[in-house]
Amino acid sequence: MDAADIHIRAVATALPGPGIDNATLAKRFGMPAAFEQWIDVFVGTRMRHFAVDLDTGDVRSSLADLAAEAGARALAAAGLEPSDVDLIVMATSSPDALMPATVNVVADRLGIDRISTYQLQSGCTGAVQALDVAAQLLRGGRHSVALVIGGDTCAKHLDVTVDGAALPPAEQINGVLFGDGAGAAVLTTRPSPGAPVLRHAFVELAGLGRAPGQIVNWTGRAARDTGEPIVSEDYKAIEESVPVLAAEALDRLLDELDWKETEVDYLLPPQLSGRMTEKITARLDAPHAREVSCVADIGNTGNALPFFQLELALPRMAAGDRAAGVAIESSKWIKAAYAVERQL
Amino acid sequence: MDAADIHIRAVATALPGPGIDNATLAKRFGMPAAFEQWIDVFVGTRMRHFAVDLDTGDVRSSLADLAAEAGARALAAAGLEPSDVDLIVMATSSPDALMPATVNVVADRLGIDRISTYQLQSGCTGAVQALDVAAQLLRGGRHSVALVIGGDTCAKHLDVTVDGAALPPAEQINGVLFGDGAGAAVLTTRPSPGAPVLRHAFVELAGLGRAPGQIVNWTGRAARDTGEPIVSEDYKAIEESVPVLAAEALDRLLDELDWKETEVDYLLPPQLSGRMTEKITARLDAPHAREVSCVADIGNTGNALPFFQLELALPRMAAGDRAAGVAIESSKWIKAAYAVERQL
Repeated sequence: MDAADIHIRAVATALPGPGIDNATLAKRFGMPAAFEQWIDVFVGTRMRHFAVDLDTGDVRSSLADLAAEAGARALAAAGLEPSDVDLIVMATSSPDALMPATVNVVADRLGIDRISTYQLQSGCTGAVQALDVAAQLLRGGRHSVALVIGGDTCAKHLDVTVDGAALPPAEQINGVLFGDGAGAAVLTTRPSPGAPVLRHAFVELAGLGRAPGQIVNWTGRAARDTGEPIVSEDYKAIEESVPVLAAEALDRLLDELDWKETEVDYLLPPQLSGRMTEKITARLDAPHAREVSCVADIGNTGNALPFFQLELALPRMAAGDRAAGVAIESSKWIKAAYAVERQL
Repeated sequence: MDAADIHIRAVATALPGPGIDNATLAKRFGMPAAFEQWIDVFVGTRMRHFAVDLDTGDVRSSLADLAAEAGARALAAAGLEPSDVDLIVMATSSPDALMPATVNVVADRLGIDRISTYQLQSGCTGAVQALDVAAQLLRGGRHSVALVIGGDTCAKHLDVTVDGAALPPAEQINGVLFGDGAGAAVLTTRPSPGAPVLRHAFVELAGLGRAPGQIVNWTGRAARDTGEPIVSEDYKAIEESVPVLAAEALDRLLDELDWKETEVDYLLPPQLSGRMTEKITARLDAPHAREVSCVADIGNTGNALPFFQLELALPRMAAGDRAAGVAIESSKWIKAAYAVERQL
């Protein structure tokens, strides 16, 4: 349905520090013995990485560090130099600073200059937003090689001094759900024989009149105590809405591509947590598709996650294989999806 | 040079509260008598509006409030309904929250749903970034009416309890330089007889190996005292670099359009402050152009400012007139420019 082919020349990722399992997390935050079992049953996430050292609170990696690492790896895997890149689109919910935009710090680290750079403020649909915008800009013909980046770190939200056992359950769950990381993809309109093609991507707001499912606030110099929490989620609304929105997003994707449900070989579903992803996937109608998920092993890395899924899926795809990815953002309710095909 | 015509159907703006003049500002923050003269000579900004009530510290307008107001006015002026909009691109350095992105709250206020929305994290080049991205997406053909928004508010940075006289000069200057506001434009590929055309827009990173000229930090739940200021500027670097970058941006714009310097009828230069804009404009080579500036009257409203300039310039442009706009972002050094022409 879209004119020029957008080749995915490479995908790469970066994770900070060692993986933290549930036992380590429980011990570190003084949680009761039942906590580990509780995570296992209700969350289903086994491991995550943090940009912050849990013992000292020191920031181990900035978002720019992780994004530059993923970006450099993706360029190397694509066999391209930083000077080949003429567009960067990055997505994050947790920029290192409000200014400068982290994308420009990443460009500097990679030795990239004199090109167009854009940074999208986004949650769990950010990777798809960035892929979508980059693909559309590439099709416009002004650019030919785009570095697309997504990443998040908890560095400004994770308080290592907190007594976990004293927190309300909704805050305890945040500590186990999310992980830090970054991912990058190199998209190009240049001929790339054998490279998978990004067939389509879209982002669609679905939040009219609805309260946000997730709010992440920030403070500046004039910190006013509004009595509202900095981070809050409506897990009930998320659990109810995300599977429905995910099914709608997949339907729209297949419809716009004229693909049948039975033609999807790989399914890359939303990655909220191990258990939630199971519930979502159960409702997605792609009967022959193999699921590609990684949230149980790395946590919900937000804007980075679809890159981790693509990194797993692309090498498995044989000629002619089709993959469908879905991402849902519960902030103000956004559905997004993308399709990849390895050409015959 | 670009394929489809992008018509600017309307531009509108919004400002919070009453205008605050230098005398009021000096009195409110207990500044010495010389302060007013000092602003006059060195800054040249007479007035600005704030989203925060200076007496009580209460937040008078959120960014979403201002952006929705500007957006609604722009749609009304364009003779279009919210349901006509199929793309929103917003730019800001000061989103109300990190999630949800403010653009989606604005969409909700306007009654807009089921479309693509993007929010760019950006400083003084944000309006051009948003115009550029929106125009490129419109040219791709998937969308036909874009609402483009830029805005900023100081609500989380302006501490009304501070003793102004005790602040270092670099912080005193911030209090007089910046103002709050939002602007919006309706761009469309639909036939719009008589409407000015956005001929071209570009954004170019120019920061390789250079320290940022402006840093705005944020804190979340895990506020760590790093000893670094939340907001900082390198005014010397800004004063040295911005006029040079602005001249380069104008050169590139005219070069890519094949316009001569003498063919520019209206010049919309960067709006850092009244005095800085004078210095920048003196170096811009557009000998027959009438300058369109407004920073002295509303302060540096960041991502909103080019919309205020366009709102002034467009009604003055006769058939065949050409306008060139330049914006420079000192954060990590970005140059941007755009060109508007009223067709014969």
